Amino acid sequence: MNRREFSQQLCGAALIGAFAKLAIAQQQTRDMSGKQQSASEKPTEIAMFIYPGMTALDLIGLQQVFGYLPGVNVELVAKTTNPVRSDTGISIQPSKTFADCVDPVDVLFVGGGSDGTVALMTDSETLDFLTRRGKTAKLVTSVCTGSMVLGAAGLLRGYKATSHWSVRDLLPQLGAELVVNRVVQDRNRITAGGITAGIDFGLRVAAELRGEDYARFLTLALEYDPQPPFGRGVPEKATPAVEKMSHPAFDPLHAAFRDAALQARKKLVSNPQKGCS
Amino acid sequence: MNRREFSQQLCGAALIGAFAKLAIAQQQTRDMSGKQQSASEKPTEIAMFIYPGMTALDLIGLQQVFGYLPGVNVELVAKTTNPVRSDTGISIQPSKTFADCVDPVDVLFVGGGSDGTVALMTDSETLDFLTRRGKTAKLVTSVCTGSMVLGAAGLLRGYKATSHWSVRDLLPQLGAELVVNRVVQDRNRITAGGITAGIDFGLRVAAELRGEDYARFLTLALEYDPQPPFGRGVPEKATPAVEKMSHPAFDPLHAAFRDAALQARKKLVSNPQKGCS
Repeated sequence: MNRREFSQQLCGAALIGAFAKLAIAQQQTRDMSGKQQSASEKPTEIAMFIYPGMTALDLIGLQQVFGYLPGVNVELVAKTTNPVRSDTGISIQPSKTFADCVDPVDVLFVGGGSDGTVALMTDSETLDFLTRRGKTAKLVTSVCTGSMVLGAAGLLRGYKATSHWSVRDLLPQLGAELVVNRVVQDRNRITAGGITAGIDFGLRVAAELRGEDYARFLTLALEYDPQPPFGRGVPEKATPAVEKMSHPAFDPLHAAFRDAALQARKKLVSNPQKGCS
Repeated sequence: MNRREFSQQLCGAALIGAFAKLAIAQQQTRDMSGKQQSASEKPTEIAMFIYPGMTALDLIGLQQVFGYLPGVNVELVAKTTNPVRSDTGISIQPSKTFADCVDPVDVLFVGGGSDGTVALMTDSETLDFLTRRGKTAKLVTSVCTGSMVLGAAGLLRGYKATSHWSVRDLLPQLGAELVVNRVVQDRNRITAGGITAGIDFGLRVAAELRGEDYARFLTLALEYDPQPPFGRGVPEKATPAVEKMSHPAFDPLHAAFRDAALQARKKLVSNPQKGCS
């Protein structure tokens, strides 16, 4: 086999190429309402908001699932075109700005973080963008503390929701009803728990967009057979040693989210219709 | 509270800030050999190789864990300083090139992918870099098809190893002994299964670097309580519908990895000492 033939074989063999072929072979997939949709129809537009200080795994756990779905267009949307640095130093390039993000989007997503996320909860430019796109999106979604930002944008008032375990008790300050589950869906709002919950959540959205068989296929492609080596990551299971580490890490974080939630609540109360769909 | 006070509170409350404080509070952590190590000692140097076409979740599942560890320096190492585009279109900025990557590294990591990964298996510049750093690294590691690249660099000869389920049968072509497990450790080589296995693997490395209590704390911080909504992602559990989707996606991929493994094997046979530590 010469170099060109080998190169052609590689191109033909690419996993994504194969996924794309699958999308064509399937021809018909279900959209969110169960309506039949052909592969040639307008793609499902997914806008994933990214910002400095975000937790990269909140984003990527989900983006890896969305990126493997046929018939979707995933954009990473930020305030500007500058690279965005995550809380662990991963620098990611946005693909769209607020100004050029498609309108309406089908799926709006906000991931979580710590100080960067708290700062967003009182950032009017971000909240205005999310409120506007959230009003018309078919699905409004979050992972981890991203739901605190959706709440600050007025998008969770009257909805059941969840967040990272360390701050989820604050959701009612933003008009949401807290439900302690890994993934919580209430009508067109889907919120997930902390960081790694994005994978479970992504597979559920995949099923909603493209059917359960496709979600099962992605589960296999991702080799999603989790085997946590040190037990379950939930506060009820924390050992005394872990509790001792948790308080200095999470108590100040909770205080910062609480203060931001109280500030955001004041604005929501003064503008009761904001974000209501 | 005025803006400045609020800003100060945010800074104090940052999750990473809290983790850093924890690192200082702990003062003493174990290094890989169990020796006591103070937080002021030289950091553990982790080099994560990134390349076009990589699967972002292979990298980020692990980087999120490493990034939360006290006393480590994580670098994303690529051939050049150009942003690297993942298989689902995430564009990530390298922090080091092959030329300026620290030497020796403590942990060397290669993630997987599809066509981009196959191409690396016959890329002498990449293989030379991995062989050199792998000879002196304390841990040589991979997630998903990254182990095929380690194998092509001669770093798995005589070691037990695993890979993504779709190509793991090819590891013996590169001198490794296949073990079907989510994470396989043999002396200082640790290889993990497909994509999502990086999180389980990362927590195990965290325990090795900083102790089991810290790994349990990270499990809680990551809210790692996986609940796969559509069962286990392993080939033995695939339904007929999933099998039907898998063959056109994974059979050509297997063929491309097989051809690359055969090419790499020829070079290894002609240079039997390459990569032996």
